[in-house]
Amino acid sequence: MPDGGPVIILTRPQMGENIGAAARAMLNFGLTELRLVDPRDGWPNPRAVAMASGAAGRVLDRARVFPTLAEAMEGISYAFATTARGRELTKPIFTPATAAAHARTEIAQGGRVAFIFGPERAGLDNADVARASAILTVPVNPDFPSLNLAQAVLLLGYEWAQDRLPMQPMPAGRRPPGEIPADRVEVERLGDHYERRLDEAGYFFPELKAPSMKQNLRNLWARMPLTRADVQVLHGMLRHLTRAR
Amino acid sequence: MPDGGPVIILTRPQMGENIGAAARAMLNFGLTELRLVDPRDGWPNPRAVAMASGAAGRVLDRARVFPTLAEAMEGISYAFATTARGRELTKPIFTPATAAAHARTEIAQGGRVAFIFGPERAGLDNADVARASAILTVPVNPDFPSLNLAQAVLLLGYEWAQDRLPMQPMPAGRRPPGEIPADRVEVERLGDHYERRLDEAGYFFPELKAPSMKQNLRNLWARMPLTRADVQVLHGMLRHLTRAR
Repeated sequence: MPDGGPVIILTRPQMGENIGAAARAMLNFGLTELRLVDPRDGWPNPRAVAMASGAAGRVLDRARVFPTLAEAMEGISYAFATTARGRELTKPIFTPATAAAHARTEIAQGGRVAFIFGPERAGLDNADVARASAILTVPVNPDFPSLNLAQAVLLLGYEWAQDRLPMQPMPAGRRPPGEIPADRVEVERLGDHYERRLDEAGYFFPELKAPSMKQNLRNLWARMPLTRADVQVLHGMLRHLTRAR
Repeated sequence: MPDGGPVIILTRPQMGENIGAAARAMLNFGLTELRLVDPRDGWPNPRAVAMASGAAGRVLDRARVFPTLAEAMEGISYAFATTARGRELTKPIFTPATAAAHARTEIAQGGRVAFIFGPERAGLDNADVARASAILTVPVNPDFPSLNLAQAVLLLGYEWAQDRLPMQPMPAGRRPPGEIPADRVEVERLGDHYERRLDEAGYFFPELKAPSMKQNLRNLWARMPLTRADVQVLHGMLRHLTRAR
């Protein structure tokens, strides 16, 4: 897993459960350094531990607690304050994607990056935001912008881990433009049609293998980028083939 | 908000709370069409409603329930099965980012896209995955891959909404609109002002080091992302500090 990654700073977190959920979200994307500023219910917090099972518990064990945000930024060269507001402060604004890219550059140049999150109810206040190098805002539906603490950490971790984790994106398979894509229900009926005729023809033999043969066939139809016309052609082929017998 | 967006299909979901949390995650990113396949505890589910407050409750109100996944894919032209496994099936594999891009292309060509999620404990089985056009896998820390249902929906929604929501990503290092960046000549004058006053105060000592000290200070001003207002503040500070002497 990546090392020297961003530090997550939770400022005055309220619920232990949310601290535990944030630790889980961090570890999902390989982030392991957590700092807490003045947690409401003290520290350690048994509710946080109950929420962060297994390896995420070790993130909590190693968490450091600070009395103020200023002190929690020890060793940090670039800090993002996560907030939907704070626009009255002159400060660069990043999305999770652009912030993650900026963090990679900063870290590659020998810096250490922190992402600061505020209390669940009120979020970061302006005095906190004024201490950060930049603002991080997650673009959300303006009519329903309610992300919780762990979700915000999750999205940030997800962007940070892009291109760092083993699974790389695969290029997409395209269908020729101008063709009407088949409805999945049409594809299901096509699968039914073939399965029925092949069954009658004794294709699914030996019986022991029939379920996996049927599943593979189902999968074959499903992954074809079929058009409506393709489906008609395949039905027609089958009708002709079985009429001959 | 975007319309005609991807449909979220929850297959045999177990906990009502998770259905409610998934509805919230959908609406955070403007997704509103939810389909449920054979939910364990029936439908409607009061625990789902309790979890999805406000506008997310309307996503639940409009959710449609189907007995099988095959039937739930009515009207869908391209379906992604969300799974960390299923690799034994021949099928394109996408990340949330590439899947969202593919979904946009599909929708632009008149198709309808679904993202299929499995039951909380076991995930989608191979018979489900075989019915999808492609596989969606979220790249996570292999040592701690435990994403919950609503988190998986959240990441997908987040990627879908990229570039669709009002807050557009700001290019890195930019300052918010409305703030006028300082002209480089103003920055030069600021440098001159400080250099003159510091010189009078005997700051540049020993004389041998004065040129490099001056250059470092010049560089400090130059790399700050200063606004016109910042420059005025810095002039004012200096005037006040030197007036006192």
